[in-house]
Amino acid sequence: MLRPTHNGDRYQLTSATAMPQAAGFLWNQQMMIQMTCRGYATAQFMQPEPAKYAHAPNLEAKTFMQPEQNYYAHHPGRFFYLKDEETGELFSAPYEPVRAPVDHFTFSVGKSDLQWTVEHLGIRMELTLGLPSRDVVELWSLRVTNLSGRTRKISVYPYFPIGYMSWMNQSGEYRADLGGIVASSVTPYQKVADYFKQKDFKDQTYFLCEQTPDAWDARQSAFEGEGGLHQPSGVQAQHLSGSDARYETPTAAVQYRLSLSAGETRDYRFLFGPAFDDAEIKAIRARYLSADAFAATAKDYADYIASGRGCLHIETPDADLDNFVNHWLPRQVFYHGDVNRLSTDPQTRNYLQDNMGMSFIKPSVMRKAFLHALSQQEASGAMPDGILLAEGAELKYINQVPHTDHCVWLPVALKVYLNETADYDILNEDVIGADSGVALTVSERVSSAMDWLLQARDKRGLSYIAQGDWCDPMNMVGYKGRGVSGWLTVATAYALNLWAEICETTGASSSLAESAKHFRAGARAVNRAANEYLWDGDWYARGITDDNVTFGVRKDQEGRIWLNPQAWAILGGAANTGQRASMLAQVEQQLVTPYGVQMFAPPYSAMRDDVGRVTQKHPGSAENGAVYNHAAIFYIYSLYAIGESDRAYALLRKMLPGPEEIDYLQRGQLPVFIPNYYRGAWREYPRTAGRSSQLFNTGTVSWAYLCFVEGLCGLKGCADGLSVKPQLPSHWDGIKVVRQFRHATFNVSIQRADVDKIQLHCDGKRLTTSRITGIVVGKTYALEVFIPRSP
Amino acid sequence: MLRPTHNGDRYQLTSATAMPQAAGFLWNQQMMIQMTCRGYATAQFMQPEPAKYAHAPNLEAKTFMQPEQNYYAHHPGRFFYLKDEETGELFSAPYEPVRAPVDHFTFSVGKSDLQWTVEHLGIRMELTLGLPSRDVVELWSLRVTNLSGRTRKISVYPYFPIGYMSWMNQSGEYRADLGGIVASSVTPYQKVADYFKQKDFKDQTYFLCEQTPDAWDARQSAFEGEGGLHQPSGVQAQHLSGSDARYETPTAAVQYRLSLSAGETRDYRFLFGPAFDDAEIKAIRARYLSADAFAATAKDYADYIASGRGCLHIETPDADLDNFVNHWLPRQVFYHGDVNRLSTDPQTRNYLQDNMGMSFIKPSVMRKAFLHALSQQEASGAMPDGILLAEGAELKYINQVPHTDHCVWLPVALKVYLNETADYDILNEDVIGADSGVALTVSERVSSAMDWLLQARDKRGLSYIAQGDWCDPMNMVGYKGRGVSGWLTVATAYALNLWAEICETTGASSSLAESAKHFRAGARAVNRAANEYLWDGDWYARGITDDNVTFGVRKDQEGRIWLNPQAWAILGGAANTGQRASMLAQVEQQLVTPYGVQMFAPPYSAMRDDVGRVTQKHPGSAENGAVYNHAAIFYIYSLYAIGESDRAYALLRKMLPGPEEIDYLQRGQLPVFIPNYYRGAWREYPRTAGRSSQLFNTGTVSWAYLCFVEGLCGLKGCADGLSVKPQLPSHWDGIKVVRQFRHATFNVSIQRADVDKIQLHCDGKRLTTSRITGIVVGKTYALEVFIPRSP
Repeated sequence: MLRPTHNGDRYQLTSATAMPQAAGFLWNQQMMIQMTCRGYATAQFMQPEPAKYAHAPNLEAKTFMQPEQNYYAHHPGRFFYLKDEETGELFSAPYEPVRAPVDHFTFSVGKSDLQWTVEHLGIRMELTLGLPSRDVVELWSLRVTNLSGRTRKISVYPYFPIGYMSWMNQSGEYRADLGGIVASSVTPYQKVADYFKQKDFKDQTYFLCEQTPDAWDARQSAFEGEGGLHQPSGVQAQHLSGSDARYETPTAAVQYRLSLSAGETRDYRFLFGPAFDDAEIKAIRARYLSADAFAATAKDYADYIASGRGCLHIETPDADLDNFVNHWLPRQVFYHGDVNRLSTDPQTRNYLQDNMGMSFIKPSVMRKAFLHALSQQEASGAMPDGILLAEGAELKYINQVPHTDHCVWLPVALKVYLNETADYDILNEDVIGADSGVALTVSERVSSAMDWLLQARDKRGLSYIAQGDWCDPMNMVGYKGRGVSGWLTVATAYALNLWAEICETTGASSSLAESAKHFRAGARAVNRAANEYLWDGDWYARGITDDNVTFGVRKDQEGRIWLNPQAWAILGGAANTGQRASMLAQVEQQLVTPYGVQMFAPPYSAMRDDVGRVTQKHPGSAENGAVYNHAAIFYIYSLYAIGESDRAYALLRKMLPGPEEIDYLQRGQLPVFIPNYYRGAWREYPRTAGRSSQLFNTGTVSWAYLCFVEGLCGLKGCADGLSVKPQLPSHWDGIKVVRQFRHATFNVSIQRADVDKIQLHCDGKRLTTSRITGIVVGKTYALEVFIPRSP
Repeated sequence: MLRPTHNGDRYQLTSATAMPQAAGFLWNQQMMIQMTCRGYATAQFMQPEPAKYAHAPNLEAKTFMQPEQNYYAHHPGRFFYLKDEETGELFSAPYEPVRAPVDHFTFSVGKSDLQWTVEHLGIRMELTLGLPSRDVVELWSLRVTNLSGRTRKISVYPYFPIGYMSWMNQSGEYRADLGGIVASSVTPYQKVADYFKQKDFKDQTYFLCEQTPDAWDARQSAFEGEGGLHQPSGVQAQHLSGSDARYETPTAAVQYRLSLSAGETRDYRFLFGPAFDDAEIKAIRARYLSADAFAATAKDYADYIASGRGCLHIETPDADLDNFVNHWLPRQVFYHGDVNRLSTDPQTRNYLQDNMGMSFIKPSVMRKAFLHALSQQEASGAMPDGILLAEGAELKYINQVPHTDHCVWLPVALKVYLNETADYDILNEDVIGADSGVALTVSERVSSAMDWLLQARDKRGLSYIAQGDWCDPMNMVGYKGRGVSGWLTVATAYALNLWAEICETTGASSSLAESAKHFRAGARAVNRAANEYLWDGDWYARGITDDNVTFGVRKDQEGRIWLNPQAWAILGGAANTGQRASMLAQVEQQLVTPYGVQMFAPPYSAMRDDVGRVTQKHPGSAENGAVYNHAAIFYIYSLYAIGESDRAYALLRKMLPGPEEIDYLQRGQLPVFIPNYYRGAWREYPRTAGRSSQLFNTGTVSWAYLCFVEGLCGLKGCADGLSVKPQLPSHWDGIKVVRQFRHATFNVSIQRADVDKIQLHCDGKRLTTSRITGIVVGKTYALEVFIPRSP
């Protein structure tokens, strides 16, 4: 078992067996691919809904990406068999399907490529996968080196299974004219209308070879034969059989027979992806399939990824943390804002938060997305469950289930954008309603959304939950129309206060000043109701059902305490100092685990009819008591809001992979992204607790970045400049930060010193406030910050 | 490569590699299971929609059974590993997943059980699968015998993968209190309403052991480990690890460590199936898990299957044919009528024809089904696309696409029922409309359906096709509302004539006599239109598109000639003698292949926008030019209708598996059922032509049975008795038949003799007609039939 090591901005794993699920991912504007260290792949592209060009061996359900993905022998992957022609011995790189115990194995995840080095039988195979910044095509290079010191006769077999494409029409054959294997299919449909939606689909899958192979198989059953994938009959034979597939499962397997003198190296390049027709395949080949094109594409793609590098560079006593914050976290934030999870109807709250993260990378993207979301606001002021991004897109899956929280996220996301940009002009932008055609300003629309939240409450002043709110599918608390959400109530207060604060800040018009008063009053009323009906003595309840049962309270054996109502009661101002202290203690005692802070505890072990779906989920899985990072990050954010720096840092650190070896192994994940959850139920199911979902789609990341920028480093924007208020953990003496802000650069040194309160020196000059104003575009500032020593 | 041999009513295969797809199936009122010779399984049960208790390793799409099912290493199956504890060698029975070259292999398919005998490493494993006649439970017995002549230490591992049950909640563990492994899951849902539909689902899967195992694994990954299914880590170790599954893929693997003296035998019994809860599992165990219960259940199930034995027993010069007709064909007819393809919304035409077959087995089932179908007739007289069988069932998949042919099948199915039973009283039964609540008699409803067919025609008198008609998804011929179907036009004439004939036969009321005249006139008008607009010189066209393009005609390069319009023009009377002769010659030349008669030819190689989906299907697959047996059987039926006995027999024989070895191997199917198609495109893709779909759901079988009863044997019912008109192929001298008919038994000898025309002798007495009337219930008749020698 080998611990992953990092080298600059790459992560390397040197054993395929220690962490079989370890994976890296690449994406561009049109596709994403996640590859495990062993060679299994999950790749999707948009046309306009997510589609595949390599398939499972059976008919797979179309659904969202599944957590804790299972792999199995015939799962889609990218494999390279190697056979010693003199002895018949064989192995496969990266590792599957042969699973030979190789002499050397390295899986190296970079920000813009994935690489493997595998040595066995005296031969080294080096694999690299890259993507271009736009087209849907995988660029694979293979280098084979003879390490054995003598001439060798070997065969190398790139094997890219294509899988069960369609029950209507599928076939495959080697196309000498195109230089590779092309599999064809027709996406099944039954209704005439679907034909017109699908007729321009890229239903062909190509595997193109720069060097003409010596033999090939285009039919899965012919290649595999009786040998099975661990010992394919095709590989055991002298030559692949040249098979085609006719209404049979196609595959792409080719063979190169070669003689390598001692030390000799050979390079091969391949393209893999979907296409509409031969002409497109030809064009792709011409554009990408050469050594020069590979090099140019790699550079272009690296530049593309670098364009999302973020606004923060830190040097702290925690090198693992630095590496994650400087390289990987902004990359994941960029991914979310760049492609919206490759969905055509992202959930409204996800869409707003994913784009919110772009405030730190490409603020114009956030601006545009915010206006786009508002354009789909309903006449009532309500926001829809999902935001449609493509022509003909529809609300699908969970977006067909009514949730009541979407309006909350408007001021929450907007405030972050305004802090970073001070672009208060956006408030006066006209937004034309997609349905109504009515133009209203951003201010009017956000106010309307806030008024919607205020009216969507019961007589007690608590917020209705309908069939759910954020990240907790409690679909039966309020489906009869009466149940209320504790979290949404305190979150409503937070949203109202944020919006009031924005209105106060701009202060431009008297109507905004009036609005501010109105919403401040609303927030106070909401918080009063929360304290009257939801405070349970030591924490806030999660809600009250249709039949008036309060839950998430002391008397509950399961689901007793929930994290979200506590975090947001801090943010929204419902909780006073005494309440906060008891909540923090209870969270510490009941929810914090070695793997992070659980969304609630204890997990439900069986269905509760008046709570619903969450109680049917497996204990510790996504929504039933897991360490749900999106919930956890708000708790951390609320801790920074009240100066709880040590607690905040400790939980942030648990969220990031590493630095402990046990952490990697238990989580099964390289430290290249934050997953949406780690398995919870630490007390009930310790064996599986801490395990990563392996899903990198999560609203967590923009908030995690915010916690580093505004919380730990304390370098937060305000209307007229940059406020400085670092919150280092008490065991740190100091850090260095480079902060990009409003087109200026701040080189910041933060040090503990014998000061009573924070002291700032800007370009050698002591400031009297903890705020830099009058920032000059293009200028570099040297900022020295002294903070009091820990008590 | 070994040829299958049959032995009475079993079929045996003695090599797992020669025909990897060879399979048998069992069913009862609630479930069906298809098992391949190698151990892969496809099993479904009703709750009320089809559901699974053993799953693929990934999320599978819910859909109809797929043709030419692909198997792969982790496909659901039932496997038994055996390890020699002294040498570590292992193999698995039946064959997968180890695929060891065993010393002896027999797969034996019976009508009421499936058996395997596998010998390797000096050990024999005998497996038997049975079902009870109602509950959803598999009864597995395993006998292990030491053949090696010395004491042996071995471990036996029954391994029943359970697969990916649910992304919401899945787990598994060994339950000592229940005596086996129980896996639990929750069927995923997102909308509240679905919860109430699903909450009583049988979401547990049990694997119960009569003998307590020595060790077990309930987690797939723990059992399989790095070894893979061909060499599982669990089996390589001394003991299975006792693992559980917590939100992980469950499995059922148990280990028996045993020492067997020379010649010693051990018997094991297991149960596998779904359940709602522990109480149900306990009850199932108590009811079934013992040697006595297995024996009693086997007998009960064999009786159940025997109750569907049919009305015909033949002895001909073709022993393979006899065996199929006497044993397997009625079993397949019974299956269809017994469980309606395990669907809650069978297509109307399938429902009517599947139940029509019950006229020969349990006529009361057909009677009830016919009335049930009519109760869902629409006010317009139209029949819906599917018949709903269960509370809350909905029209799904293809039943949401409007087809225009469903009314045709009413008189077609009714006529067969009336021929067999003379139950003309049914015509006066009141049928209350499910929607309308209006009571109309069967006569009135069928007349109304016939009038609907008459009005659903264009100005030329041709029948509209809308988005499709029977068995040819030409969904774009008439989707704009103008296109017409050639087949449906001539089929309408057939239906009208049949109904007129029924009306004439009863002759009871003057209104029926009037109806007869009305529909005879309608049929003549329809046939005139067919001849005016569809006759293309040598055959009838398949249709005319929305844009007035006639297709299925001489000038077409693809889809030039279609079988259905020709067959039904014969049956419906459109074609005169000259036309029939030229049609038969063209069919012979263009459509008949070594594997049967294609539905049309040449197959389409690409999309034709004015024809639609069929042209996008793979050439030779289900609907694009395959030997579609349901279409072929009507052509055969029409050949018998005009006395073309030799042609009819030759094509019937091609439809049945065997007798040639090449036939089995090419088709990959044991001769235990007729599949819905054999791959066509014999000229275009000879490698795959003839291959079986392996799907045993097909409307073909009741018509095949009818062809034997009424065509070849010529023992057809009429209003007052049994008419006799055998149509032996010319190379046969005679056959013997036992025909059950209207509660009497006819022992029939049919012989060629020096007669000019048919001569009947009943109980030694020569008759002057070729009809037996005044049949006495319970009586046995001896019938000698002499027919002219062949010219």
